[in-house]
Amino acid sequence: MSPGMDADLPAFLDTLADAAGAAILPYFRAGYATRNKAGAGGFDPVTEADQAGESAMRALIAERFPGHGILGEEYGAQGLERDDVWVLDPIDGTRAFLAGLPTWGTLIGLNRRGVPRHGLMHQPFTGERFAGDGRTAGFRHGAGPVRALRTRACAALGDAILCTTDPRLFADGPERAGYAQVEAAVRMARYGADCYAYCMLAAGQVDLVVEAGLKPYDIVALIPIVAGAGGVVTSWDGGSAAEGGRVVAAGDPRLHEAALRLLAG
Amino acid sequence: MSPGMDADLPAFLDTLADAAGAAILPYFRAGYATRNKAGAGGFDPVTEADQAGESAMRALIAERFPGHGILGEEYGAQGLERDDVWVLDPIDGTRAFLAGLPTWGTLIGLNRRGVPRHGLMHQPFTGERFAGDGRTAGFRHGAGPVRALRTRACAALGDAILCTTDPRLFADGPERAGYAQVEAAVRMARYGADCYAYCMLAAGQVDLVVEAGLKPYDIVALIPIVAGAGGVVTSWDGGSAAEGGRVVAAGDPRLHEAALRLLAG
Repeated sequence: MSPGMDADLPAFLDTLADAAGAAILPYFRAGYATRNKAGAGGFDPVTEADQAGESAMRALIAERFPGHGILGEEYGAQGLERDDVWVLDPIDGTRAFLAGLPTWGTLIGLNRRGVPRHGLMHQPFTGERFAGDGRTAGFRHGAGPVRALRTRACAALGDAILCTTDPRLFADGPERAGYAQVEAAVRMARYGADCYAYCMLAAGQVDLVVEAGLKPYDIVALIPIVAGAGGVVTSWDGGSAAEGGRVVAAGDPRLHEAALRLLAG
Repeated sequence: MSPGMDADLPAFLDTLADAAGAAILPYFRAGYATRNKAGAGGFDPVTEADQAGESAMRALIAERFPGHGILGEEYGAQGLERDDVWVLDPIDGTRAFLAGLPTWGTLIGLNRRGVPRHGLMHQPFTGERFAGDGRTAGFRHGAGPVRALRTRACAALGDAILCTTDPRLFADGPERAGYAQVEAAVRMARYGADCYAYCMLAAGQVDLVVEAGLKPYDIVALIPIVAGAGGVVTSWDGGSAAEGGRVVAAGDPRLHEAALRLLAG
């Protein structure tokens, strides 16, 4: 891939975000059809909005980068063996979306040989956009200027603000116990953030995010944003978070180490 | 109080919201001083933003309605024996505010002889405004048109979307057990909504809100909004919710009855 193509990528991520936002936003806080992806046994809302958003992005990627692979929440995987693979979640935070809360986001990530290289989170209702490439990260609100994202220093768990989407997502046993130890050690824990938690960590508002049961499309886009802002994202055992699963993100590497120790039990 | 003065009240609530928003917004996602209201034993964030917002509203009320009482989160009570008492929470959802999440709001309520008569929730970052007078309720986003708020029909717990701010706020024992029964019965439960939960109930996105440990300023402003949209808000024993404490709100009176039965144990 030429350097010139790489330089164009941030603008292309913006184009994808614009298209997904235009497709999704008419469904937000409006009547829409849902069906039950998990079947009768569970409730995993899928909306026409999700599908409309992903279709819009897939069409643009196929036109611009026909040689790239795509992994999306709604329409599955194609070409995962290719060097460049887009990882898409049109609505991260489907439950927030269903409840009408503005804390969902469109996640657009690009892996190169398995490593997250570019990421963007777009909230089309509030007009917020967080983007990063692992070296830098920036934020824009509406038509405002791009401002650099930087994590804040916070070395000790006792000073940290922790976010997690839902404490019920941790499996009974060591997983829940590990999370509970971290929650008991921090200054404050806030539930219900979804992708916003990682963006607020990149913005220096939140110090720690601990989650489990993530899919790749829940996290790939967020890794270059957090890393670009100076933070650290890994699995609970310190490895790559790009496959999802158990994920811990911290704004300060010292806090990340302290959290890893507690999560290891 | 003359009918003419009553007719002016919605515009005056808008004026209060504008003033509070202008005072608070510069502190959102910016550095600011906090002190610990709960002392060493707990963490109850109080910010300069809270105080700036409440001061701005108190000054306007004192000028326009010197005969009214005021109950505010930050600066306490004055004239609670008067017929008209303003009930103010400059930042409902302080933890969301601290974490940088756009799910806090400014709550402005007016009690007449103890009954909530007017209420407004303002989210100055997203530009959303929800207002009601117990008979009607409306929503505005930015400079957009005012749209009527209406709750949706949802008679059965098994079909309901439930919101609560934080499941840790329920006291051990019957309170937590009552909430747990409701959570187990609903289709979906979402944490972390604060005042947004009631506004989304008024908008027909959420069916049920169950909370405990509320202060009057957490709920008074929201009662005329929910009631004006066709919903029901009471204490867990079916009485007035205006004093806070244990609160249950439903968009459909049938769902409210079903929730009351479970919460009674």
